[in-house]
Amino acid sequence: MTLILGIDPGSRATGFGIIESVGNRLKYVASGCIRPDLGEHPQRLKEIFRGISEVVEQYSPEECAIEEVFLGKSVSSALKLGQARGSAMVACLHLDLPVAEYTPRTVKQSVTGSGAADKTQVQHMVKVLLGLQGRLQADAADALAIAVCHANTRQSLIKVASARNFSRGRFHR
Amino acid sequence: MTLILGIDPGSRATGFGIIESVGNRLKYVASGCIRPDLGEHPQRLKEIFRGISEVVEQYSPEECAIEEVFLGKSVSSALKLGQARGSAMVACLHLDLPVAEYTPRTVKQSVTGSGAADKTQVQHMVKVLLGLQGRLQADAADALAIAVCHANTRQSLIKVASARNFSRGRFHR
Repeated sequence: MTLILGIDPGSRATGFGIIESVGNRLKYVASGCIRPDLGEHPQRLKEIFRGISEVVEQYSPEECAIEEVFLGKSVSSALKLGQARGSAMVACLHLDLPVAEYTPRTVKQSVTGSGAADKTQVQHMVKVLLGLQGRLQADAADALAIAVCHANTRQSLIKVASARNFSRGRFHR
Repeated sequence: MTLILGIDPGSRATGFGIIESVGNRLKYVASGCIRPDLGEHPQRLKEIFRGISEVVEQYSPEECAIEEVFLGKSVSSALKLGQARGSAMVACLHLDLPVAEYTPRTVKQSVTGSGAADKTQVQHMVKVLLGLQGRLQADAADALAIAVCHANTRQSLIKVASARNFSRGRFHR
């Protein structure tokens, strides 16, 4: 059993989602969104850091995955997003939680089977995969999608690793 | 007496400088540079966060000033710089240290009298103002310049505030 924290970083809203991965099964644990007050910029970074730190302390996830930011925006947006993303990442790293990074395309591919899927499709599949009903906050859904992507990826990595060990064992015996 | 921490953020090198401001006098306390190992990106952010946290814990500065980043670079550089800057800022904010931001132009203007001064001039004036001799690391010099700028700015703010109180007192008596 592995508890995974997914983070969808943003300077206005940072979504988070926690899932439990047991073998091939995924279970929803918690999700939410940190929306800093629209005060001074440094204070907003502090709220992101504190918010993610609290989530880590409350749920004690063992691994964390964060989305690599889409870079089509302006230099000034990239800087703001970088600051928010950095604040969320160090909140995890500071508490010795390893952080994996995935591109938006990899997340979509892993959750829906298509790297070009739209937001609605991703949200729909997150609900199906985690057996959730009712509405799901958009930022929380994105964060859960990142956690699902990490759960799937680490599962395949484990399988690849076992297959390698097996074939190595066979050839080197 | 106020202890001021200046930070020059960067993903490869984050300079820091601590000065003591007593009335109009400035005194050098310490300076240095955090150069994260060229490992994975998240680990580098962790080193910046840890490094600045250690500086804050060791010297207990009362105020912090950081440079607003020059935005002429690419979107991808802005993101990296934002992450490094965010990590350094939350290290201070997390320990309840207030953070002020200054543009490179304001820092140069405050230290040399010209917003268009070059790096050599800024470094020269930092050494003169703090009575330092010998060589000074470039990143540490920039961080000290930011601290000097904050010390000068808060001095003028205090003066403006007293003048306002005085004139208010005069007119409202």
